[in-house]
Amino acid sequence: MKNLLISPFFQNLIISVVIIDSVCLGLLSTSTLQSHKLLETIDEYCLYFFIIEMFFKLIVLRKEFFHSRWNIFDLLVVMLSVAPLVSIGNLLILRAFRLVKLLRVFSAIPQLRFVIAVISKSIPSVFCVGFLLLLVFYIYGVLGTEIFASAMPEYFGDLGKSLFTLFQVMTGESWSEAIARPTMKIYPYAWIYFVSFMVMASFIVLNMVIGVIVDSINEIKSDQNRQSNS
Amino acid sequence: MKNLLISPFFQNLIISVVIIDSVCLGLLSTSTLQSHKLLETIDEYCLYFFIIEMFFKLIVLRKEFFHSRWNIFDLLVVMLSVAPLVSIGNLLILRAFRLVKLLRVFSAIPQLRFVIAVISKSIPSVFCVGFLLLLVFYIYGVLGTEIFASAMPEYFGDLGKSLFTLFQVMTGESWSEAIARPTMKIYPYAWIYFVSFMVMASFIVLNMVIGVIVDSINEIKSDQNRQSNS
Amino acid sequence: MKNLLISPFFQNLIISVVIIDSVCLGLLSTSTLQSHKLLETIDEYCLYFFIIEMFFKLIVLRKEFFHSRWNIFDLLVVMLSVAPLVSIGNLLILRAFRLVKLLRVFSAIPQLRFVIAVISKSIPSVFCVGFLLLLVFYIYGVLGTEIFASAMPEYFGDLGKSLFTLFQVMTGESWSEAIARPTMKIYPYAWIYFVSFMVMASFIVLNMVIGVIVDSINEIKSDQNRQSNS
Amino acid sequence: MKNLLISPFFQNLIISVVIIDSVCLGLLSTSTLQSHKLLETIDEYCLYFFIIEMFFKLIVLRKEFFHSRWNIFDLLVVMLSVAPLVSIGNLLILRAFRLVKLLRVFSAIPQLRFVIAVISKSIPSVFCVGFLLLLVFYIYGVLGTEIFASAMPEYFGDLGKSLFTLFQVMTGESWSEAIARPTMKIYPYAWIYFVSFMVMASFIVLNMVIGVIVDSINEIKSDQNRQSNS
Repeated sequence: MKNLLISPFFQNLIISVVIIDSVCLGLLSTSTLQSHKLLETIDEYCLYFFIIEMFFKLIVLRKEFFHSRWNIFDLLVVMLSVAPLVSIGNLLILRAFRLVKLLRVFSAIPQLRFVIAVISKSIPSVFCVGFLLLLVFYIYGVLGTEIFASAMPEYFGDLGKSLFTLFQVMTGESWSEAIARPTMKIYPYAWIYFVSFMVMASFIVLNMVIGVIVDSINEIKSDQNRQSNS
Repeated sequence: MKNLLISPFFQNLIISVVIIDSVCLGLLSTSTLQSHKLLETIDEYCLYFFIIEMFFKLIVLRKEFFHSRWNIFDLLVVMLSVAPLVSIGNLLILRAFRLVKLLRVFSAIPQLRFVIAVISKSIPSVFCVGFLLLLVFYIYGVLGTEIFASAMPEYFGDLGKSLFTLFQVMTGESWSEAIARPTMKIYPYAWIYFVSFMVMASFIVLNMVIGVIVDSINEIKSDQNRQSNS
Repeated sequence: MKNLLISPFFQNLIISVVIIDSVCLGLLSTSTLQSHKLLETIDEYCLYFFIIEMFFKLIVLRKEFFHSRWNIFDLLVVMLSVAPLVSIGNLLILRAFRLVKLLRVFSAIPQLRFVIAVISKSIPSVFCVGFLLLLVFYIYGVLGTEIFASAMPEYFGDLGKSLFTLFQVMTGESWSEAIARPTMKIYPYAWIYFVSFMVMASFIVLNMVIGVIVDSINEIKSDQNRQSNS
Repeated sequence: MKNLLISPFFQNLIISVVIIDSVCLGLLSTSTLQSHKLLETIDEYCLYFFIIEMFFKLIVLRKEFFHSRWNIFDLLVVMLSVAPLVSIGNLLILRAFRLVKLLRVFSAIPQLRFVIAVISKSIPSVFCVGFLLLLVFYIYGVLGTEIFASAMPEYFGDLGKSLFTLFQVMTGESWSEAIARPTMKIYPYAWIYFVSFMVMASFIVLNMVIGVIVDSINEIKSDQNRQSNS
């Protein structure tokens, strides 16, 4: 039974179901086919397939099932997909929840699992500097709300709006034409706020990127050393 | 005969024809000279030259011709340039097809061949992570179409529009002023969609870039090791 | 007494006060709670706490206090927070000054101290190239003011406006639609000014970034060499 | 006499004159002081100083003068500054030419000379890939002019306009809202043109950046090897 689970046939079956389902959901999202009966039925059967597969895996592997993080990920995905069937809620959210099933593709294709494992290694080195970025965001957010709230209610009306505006400024989108220049007409020294934030944020992001680069170069070196020692 | 093909004179001749043709087509694209007789005749003769050169090379090299990828590239370029002469179609496409000949410049200049060979080495390491990016695009595309189609028909009307909009958001162009802020007026929680997509997409692109950097540093090292061993 | 200062209890106490204060100030920045009595009282008591802590540290450590840069940083932060209480000025500035206390978070969390120490190492290598960038800004700023002042008074009216506009151009925000294209309608050759500035500025910034990358890779190598030697 | 030329006093004198002149020109660029007599006289005397210094250097060093590239750079700068005095032309250009003197700062400060020397090393490795970028620009420029000239005359009216538009698209400024979306309303498949250009251009630029990074890492390594060998 266990051999069946790791057989190429079984893997290809799952990948095929994911592909069929993703094509279905892609077609269902277009307005002309929005509630096409056949497509919705196929989507439903795909969900049933995933539920049965989960039960099958749980029965066969038992405790071993929870040794792999990807199995837990799959279980969560299936549970989230089933959730809207139980509770009756907003139709829009219901339909959006159908898409959760597509996340199974990440665990279904082994190469993709590997790529995600490699990428996720760079998350911890991002985390530490990311916390610093969050602090800079918070301080500038509160400061911006305090000073500009009455002048630019749309952009700095409350802390949430300010943080979103600062994210926009960090990406550089219309930061000057739509935000900084109108603000500077009321507070001429507002450029200090915007320029200092942009320089600081890009400097922190730069250090984040360099941290990731240096980490991945180091990792490869230690791999090579291990290989040459053995 | 083979010596002629690899002689500097022959190479310079091809480069000259490409340059003459590119100047011709550049002049022809301006509205005042749009259907200048002389220029069109020169362009035609350039095409004849390339056709004759292809036949000449095929006859001289025979099977050897297909050993080099650049020869196959040249053959395709010439065939694509001839295509519009045979079929009678849209005038605009016909004129655009004249430009295909200019691609011969990539095979004509040896240094350029080398640069392209170096650059194309970084494509495989981009591919794996690029597939992950495509998946993220597809899932966010379907999700965006499901939720925002009726609210923002211009940006999320169907899957194609959503994918183009997501590409625009990834490049950061007007993502907030034109897309996210109007959407947030209807769906206040839409910022989760946009911010999470931007963070995820830039993180994947970052890992793509780092993959290319690490690959090219490794390649140079293994080159140096090979040299020091021999 | 000294042991108390470096005890985890004392550190956690400071961090807690910073967190409480930052939540307070975050709530105070929203318009509905703008002059909430309780929150303002808590904020005041946080300031008293920091002042007392400073005096306590100064009395216990005496001269040793000034050996650590972070202590001097803390002292400055507390002094800047007290400043608005003494002088009576603009209400807005008064309220903005309350935020200075939040900077204590950088010295309070040891991991954050470390991250800032690592990041600040990359500042000197940025400095040298940064001076070159400043020169390019100044020359283009004066040039822009001389030529475009009368045509585009909003963007190049005086040297200050020109420098801000050049910063905007460097970040790429609306540089073409809002600035370069309208200028080119009056001075058709203005594209030389903008394109040359963008190419030059991004080339200098690129060299800055590479300087930081190379520095941090070198640092790690010299660390490894030191470890392998000892 | 030669000792005087390389003495710190002489260097500081030149730097001081450059600083005085740059402050003068900065003040002169503002509209209120536009033709201030005193400032213009100071600026004139700065020019005389540079001319005399050039003659002095030429007389003292003679042939040796032309051994250093920086001396030739200085001579060109002074000659360009004198040029407008001889020919009587547009007042605007005349005033802009006064700024050329400020370029002397690059040769006057030794540290800046070094930074420029380091940065200019990365130019050759940029060159090769830069030529590829130029080719892509030219082909897309001619193609864009051929297809979109009548639909979007402002952006693709002639080859020059197309190339400027492509530069704008490469920097990502309003590429979608102002250029691609309006074009797609007339030619629905125009997204292929824009997306392919952006992907290609950023891929080439990425390879350019990586080339510079790898080059500078290699250079440092070969420096270290040379040091460890000697």
